[in-house]
Amino acid sequence: MSYTDYLVKNLGKANVVSPLKQGASIDRPVYKFVEDNERILYDASLDHFNHCKETGEVPISFEKAGPKENIFFEPAKTKVAIVTCGGLCPGVNNVIRSLVNQLHYRYGINRILGIRYGYEGLVSKYNHPVIEMTSRMVRDIHLSGGTFLGTSRGHQDVSEMVDTLEILNVNILFCIGGDGTLRGAHAIHEEIAKRNLKIAVAGIPKTIDNDIDLIQKSFGFETAFSIANDIIRNAHNEAFSANNGVALVKLMGRDSGFIAASAALAIQEVNFVLIPEISFELHGPKGFMNVLRKRLDDRHHAVIVVAEGAGQDLFESSETELDASGNIKHKDIGLFLKEKIKEEFNSIGIPYTIKYIDPSYIIRSAPANPNDSKFCNLLAQNAVHAALSGKTDFVVGYWNDGFTLLPISMAVAKRKKIDVKGELWWNVLEATGQPISMKNS
Amino acid sequence: MSYTDYLVKNLGKANVVSPLKQGASIDRPVYKFVEDNERILYDASLDHFNHCKETGEVPISFEKAGPKENIFFEPAKTKVAIVTCGGLCPGVNNVIRSLVNQLHYRYGINRILGIRYGYEGLVSKYNHPVIEMTSRMVRDIHLSGGTFLGTSRGHQDVSEMVDTLEILNVNILFCIGGDGTLRGAHAIHEEIAKRNLKIAVAGIPKTIDNDIDLIQKSFGFETAFSIANDIIRNAHNEAFSANNGVALVKLMGRDSGFIAASAALAIQEVNFVLIPEISFELHGPKGFMNVLRKRLDDRHHAVIVVAEGAGQDLFESSETELDASGNIKHKDIGLFLKEKIKEEFNSIGIPYTIKYIDPSYIIRSAPANPNDSKFCNLLAQNAVHAALSGKTDFVVGYWNDGFTLLPISMAVAKRKKIDVKGELWWNVLEATGQPISMKNS
Amino acid sequence: MSYTDYLVKNLGKANVVSPLKQGASIDRPVYKFVEDNERILYDASLDHFNHCKETGEVPISFEKAGPKENIFFEPAKTKVAIVTCGGLCPGVNNVIRSLVNQLHYRYGINRILGIRYGYEGLVSKYNHPVIEMTSRMVRDIHLSGGTFLGTSRGHQDVSEMVDTLEILNVNILFCIGGDGTLRGAHAIHEEIAKRNLKIAVAGIPKTIDNDIDLIQKSFGFETAFSIANDIIRNAHNEAFSANNGVALVKLMGRDSGFIAASAALAIQEVNFVLIPEISFELHGPKGFMNVLRKRLDDRHHAVIVVAEGAGQDLFESSETELDASGNIKHKDIGLFLKEKIKEEFNSIGIPYTIKYIDPSYIIRSAPANPNDSKFCNLLAQNAVHAALSGKTDFVVGYWNDGFTLLPISMAVAKRKKIDVKGELWWNVLEATGQPISMKNS
Amino acid sequence: MSYTDYLVKNLGKANVVSPLKQGASIDRPVYKFVEDNERILYDASLDHFNHCKETGEVPISFEKAGPKENIFFEPAKTKVAIVTCGGLCPGVNNVIRSLVNQLHYRYGINRILGIRYGYEGLVSKYNHPVIEMTSRMVRDIHLSGGTFLGTSRGHQDVSEMVDTLEILNVNILFCIGGDGTLRGAHAIHEEIAKRNLKIAVAGIPKTIDNDIDLIQKSFGFETAFSIANDIIRNAHNEAFSANNGVALVKLMGRDSGFIAASAALAIQEVNFVLIPEISFELHGPKGFMNVLRKRLDDRHHAVIVVAEGAGQDLFESSETELDASGNIKHKDIGLFLKEKIKEEFNSIGIPYTIKYIDPSYIIRSAPANPNDSKFCNLLAQNAVHAALSGKTDFVVGYWNDGFTLLPISMAVAKRKKIDVKGELWWNVLEATGQPISMKNS
Repeated sequence: MSYTDYLVKNLGKANVVSPLKQGASIDRPVYKFVEDNERILYDASLDHFNHCKETGEVPISFEKAGPKENIFFEPAKTKVAIVTCGGLCPGVNNVIRSLVNQLHYRYGINRILGIRYGYEGLVSKYNHPVIEMTSRMVRDIHLSGGTFLGTSRGHQDVSEMVDTLEILNVNILFCIGGDGTLRGAHAIHEEIAKRNLKIAVAGIPKTIDNDIDLIQKSFGFETAFSIANDIIRNAHNEAFSANNGVALVKLMGRDSGFIAASAALAIQEVNFVLIPEISFELHGPKGFMNVLRKRLDDRHHAVIVVAEGAGQDLFESSETELDASGNIKHKDIGLFLKEKIKEEFNSIGIPYTIKYIDPSYIIRSAPANPNDSKFCNLLAQNAVHAALSGKTDFVVGYWNDGFTLLPISMAVAKRKKIDVKGELWWNVLEATGQPISMKNS
Repeated sequence: MSYTDYLVKNLGKANVVSPLKQGASIDRPVYKFVEDNERILYDASLDHFNHCKETGEVPISFEKAGPKENIFFEPAKTKVAIVTCGGLCPGVNNVIRSLVNQLHYRYGINRILGIRYGYEGLVSKYNHPVIEMTSRMVRDIHLSGGTFLGTSRGHQDVSEMVDTLEILNVNILFCIGGDGTLRGAHAIHEEIAKRNLKIAVAGIPKTIDNDIDLIQKSFGFETAFSIANDIIRNAHNEAFSANNGVALVKLMGRDSGFIAASAALAIQEVNFVLIPEISFELHGPKGFMNVLRKRLDDRHHAVIVVAEGAGQDLFESSETELDASGNIKHKDIGLFLKEKIKEEFNSIGIPYTIKYIDPSYIIRSAPANPNDSKFCNLLAQNAVHAALSGKTDFVVGYWNDGFTLLPISMAVAKRKKIDVKGELWWNVLEATGQPISMKNS
Repeated sequence: MSYTDYLVKNLGKANVVSPLKQGASIDRPVYKFVEDNERILYDASLDHFNHCKETGEVPISFEKAGPKENIFFEPAKTKVAIVTCGGLCPGVNNVIRSLVNQLHYRYGINRILGIRYGYEGLVSKYNHPVIEMTSRMVRDIHLSGGTFLGTSRGHQDVSEMVDTLEILNVNILFCIGGDGTLRGAHAIHEEIAKRNLKIAVAGIPKTIDNDIDLIQKSFGFETAFSIANDIIRNAHNEAFSANNGVALVKLMGRDSGFIAASAALAIQEVNFVLIPEISFELHGPKGFMNVLRKRLDDRHHAVIVVAEGAGQDLFESSETELDASGNIKHKDIGLFLKEKIKEEFNSIGIPYTIKYIDPSYIIRSAPANPNDSKFCNLLAQNAVHAALSGKTDFVVGYWNDGFTLLPISMAVAKRKKIDVKGELWWNVLEATGQPISMKNS
Repeated sequence: MSYTDYLVKNLGKANVVSPLKQGASIDRPVYKFVEDNERILYDASLDHFNHCKETGEVPISFEKAGPKENIFFEPAKTKVAIVTCGGLCPGVNNVIRSLVNQLHYRYGINRILGIRYGYEGLVSKYNHPVIEMTSRMVRDIHLSGGTFLGTSRGHQDVSEMVDTLEILNVNILFCIGGDGTLRGAHAIHEEIAKRNLKIAVAGIPKTIDNDIDLIQKSFGFETAFSIANDIIRNAHNEAFSANNGVALVKLMGRDSGFIAASAALAIQEVNFVLIPEISFELHGPKGFMNVLRKRLDDRHHAVIVVAEGAGQDLFESSETELDASGNIKHKDIGLFLKEKIKEEFNSIGIPYTIKYIDPSYIIRSAPANPNDSKFCNLLAQNAVHAALSGKTDFVVGYWNDGFTLLPISMAVAKRKKIDVKGELWWNVLEATGQPISMKNS
């Protein structure tokens, strides 16, 4: 049960004329509404085109997002709920605000509920009241980071959540969240389908790490590496101001190093980027310590950026710990490296200072920058278009510069990672001058 | 004479092993150098794929940028010049700095000349000295807007400029500039070709308006609309703080309204976006004045963003004036609208205040934000790769999320404009709530 | 009738125990409430001390602000109104928010009215509704510039305004505004006194120009010159990037050049600061044009900052125009200088470019920076302390690093100007290197 | 040997006409140079005036800084050195840049040496080369935080440092640094005096904590609490977004809580400010844990700011550790509190989340904001005036809004702390609503 057309294929038709259409008229330029079969190619290379043409292979493609001429839900009778889950990410409030404004001003929907503290708000034992949301209420929320609705981690009982949606008479549920949240949204959809309910479930993927597969960029990611850029600039000041000054900055990136890589490409003052995708050794002639020492001999200062998921194989094995959302808890590679560098340089007796910087929550709780704000607004607009037109069990994506719709199950199937033979990483190698490999064999 | 392979087809071969290759080795992950025939599709829709497949039509595509395994110029013998022309744009100094660093650190080129004050610096009568550039010299220049090399507008004698390149023994000329500059670069290339010289000409397109055709985004554009976002936020404060307060902000956009549209999508506080692509009437029932008045009746404040090239048909016809670069000088639509609004509201006698804001040079002279900085660095890296590999008469572009190389003549053939039936503009209409048309018939 | 103790001397006693006192107890450190006779010296020089000691002269001093042990108004019965008038200034919303929070959380006052659109809101014909204000309502308003309550310029009928205060049962009126507003507040107080009403009138002086006499700094001023600092930085980029580039920035400063001078001291890239306090000539050997030309000959770029009130004597005399608040309308010295520089350099035929930058409303509508936010909060806290303790017809000032209370009439008697023989101006001369005088005789 | 007039009293006269004077002339406004006996009162209260007048007590006062008509050192023969020591602080590069520019442009001094890596640079064994500084070299350094000259901690041999000054023919040494640095500067002066050398030692006090006694504010402090303001704003977003969300921010403040207090007054979102000046208990009815719990019961989120030196008495006693500068190493109160809060809330079993934020080096390595930049420039200008006029063994201070000169020994005699019965702290109590005391008895 994982295709976005579930509702229109099984429970009705998209035969309500979109209120957006009423703004257009014969004598004026009219937007070409998106047709159901419009799709965007996954691979935009000419080679792939030729390959498909020759082999007859059907190229992978994504459903194109956008307003539809006819919609499924009748606005006057539609009730909507919005929920935000998981860790903070810049832009969540922009998404909430744009959902409310788009629903209210463009589709004329006035019954919009805010679910408090994530999926907890759909479960009665937590006793979190719902909020009746208005455009006035969300007027300034995008000026702050965080989430106006509150958030929580962890799973809740799916059946009870769907009970709540039924009790509240909700027709569309917008879920803003990461991997786990989206899996939860998919489970909610499946329960809804089992009960034959006319409820759409729309996902807006949130991952500050930019690691959702098949989605080119996620909201908040640019804001994140932009703030990281400024922090690294200051870290560089620390390194430069000391004799053999080492600045070590730990950035987000549990499974992928996109923030670390992008920040390094923006600031161009980073000498080493360590990411989860590439393992490295500390010791030996090609090991990190040796390379770092050469850098100091040469330039007397060094800036290291390490993604939180990097170097996990350097820790001695032990049982894996999980957090409330079921993510693997990482060992702290930042503190570990700091200690190892101190050990090394103390033992060889060269003067140095090391400054360790862990911006942690400073980044994720910031408000979105203007480009992310724009992106959040467009994500929300497209999520509303899709849900109103009867799409369900989908996330709004972005690919080859167009907004797309993906089945949730496709988006969460695996994580996006940096291709270490690809352009982005090569650019990082050029920008840092670090060795391709810091392994001895 | 307009294909980027001119040098390798006519004057030699790319048979120097790239210094980038020497960093790789058998036992380590190696970047897949870009092959000569790699291309990126212009149209990534499935419809177009099917159309081409059925009709046998060859889809339009762009050369893919990136490092080549074998290059044309031998680094130790190569001398490079960099010139910046035309109006300021955030990120010019980032491009300069990255060109220098990429040439020096990655390709080992040490003879890099800075040409002062645009093409003037290649003409002896202006007497501007060239600068011998080093990595140390450009260390902090990206922290400031403007151009470290200086700039000028206007054409110079092509023959004399090529004479200068010959005298200076320059092998590669990097030209950072807009339309006019790129046309100049193409003319320089043609003169070089006529003389059979082994000189590559590389263009890095600069247009704050984001209006170069076939290029998805240009550097500085995001910084521009981000600053505009903050200015509009304050303009909204002005409007909101007065009874029937009107804030009118004029933004850049000579021929296209991308900055105005993007800023409006980011800030979501704009009620009217007026762009060159859509003409509008001031008076009559559907005219702008009437719509503005309804907005004030309803909400008591309004924010208007007008691109400088909008509404030019509202001026009584007169001779067209050109600036030193040959661009058409626009009448000031901002001041015009301000006066017209005052006339209108004074005549109908409703209380109001109007605040006119023309940020002008404040935006274009700012330093690049982190995402633009990253983009500038990647543009520069790719420009260096391409020029070293013997490409000439090209610009570095960006399309469907990849860096591309375009013949200059293709990039300057026409200007990119907002598709008024397309997604971007439709999103603006949704975000502002303004009518699709402000014409009476 | 101009002393701040009018109420306690004529209409009652400050015999209500301050709620602030109830927080303290015998066993804990207790704040020393401010005594009625505590005062801060106007002149803190030892010379003046000796002079007064010798002559017996009583030194000028200001009443010290702060919480009083006993207050005049009984919180449970007190109703408060807040009004904001005149042009925008960074920090108005911080003042509003802190007034509301201090009244509510510290003094337990729950009836707080917001008067809309300045003094207009106290006059029935405008028909602006009052707002019942709560802490929740003002939670985020300080994140935006402007004024949450709206503002207007111009005088209103004093008698009718006092009628309105009576009808609304207001006990304390907080007026946030400049010169004209404070004169209005004083007139309101006099009418109140004539009617023997127990209503306190508290002024919080607002002047972005920092030109209120006997007050060391006014809120919003630092934010203003900080934003100006960034704009000048970019202007410098414009100037530096052109051959003989001249950047001309017009800043606020109707009668005094504090913003221009402070911005120049912060940025240290300004070559000429032109202020209302010093007249200058354009022509002749020592005139501005000649000095500017020398600067260009020497350094090839120049940055000029001109306060809007500078050089008014350069305009040919004509009738004086006044704005709605009764302020003299200045001729536009910025545009005038731009034209004059063009005339001059065109006539002598040297290459140059001039960029004119008028940030106008961009500065005054910005939110307050953190230091101004802190200052606004302390102003508001002190205004509440003073008004609750029965002070009236006062403004909150700041002098020798302490908050003070001044009779309104003293604060508006004349404007503060830069002492052109004093330290501040001398520092500007050192920072710019400009001549002490640009007059020929 | 601790008065600033040591040189002019013992080794010569200030009889060189200041180059600043030559700019003035009879027919133009002339700055009133500062006279030797001008002083600024320590206590500007009227009470103190009256007390001194009655008792005949001489009020404490500070020497006024500023340019002197006649100076001690002949610019053409004067060689200057600049050294920066200790931890980073926003504005160090502004001070360096302004020293160089003031010395060069205003006094015509061209021999300016930069000493690298603090006092180490004056000791031969470290082998740090000196830098010959020019205005061009320092043009952009203020755009970055850190110190262009590099810094180090710790004492060096005084005699050898003075040897180096003699060898280098230095006449004036500018020392930018904190407590320890200034003590070192005083020791250098004493050695100079012992040797009868004509070398002035000028101190520019650097303390991000704003804790130098008898100095109203120190450079970088405002920038520090402004950045802290933004970090706390985001921390508030974290707290607000979770059910019973607690955000705990550790800020600088080894011995005094000025940064924590000022940030709390600026942001007005802090619920608890914990500072070194006030001890508190964790447990018991009035203890911190109980008060925090009440706050959560009431509002469901809480923001705590703790200065690094707070609550040191909560640690079990052990030997005191010192860092390289001899400062006491504090136990980490931030991590300690975080653990204690977790223990407490886990044990009582209420749902909560805690986010711990330690911005550490992010703040101190930032560039100065505009107001601090202005302040740095004025400090440097005054330091140059004083040193050129023959003052030595002094620091430049700031008191009652004027720049002052203090003997180093007076400035380092003790640390400035928050007066817990004074206005600043009372304002914090009002802004936070926290109890006056969190002790049980």
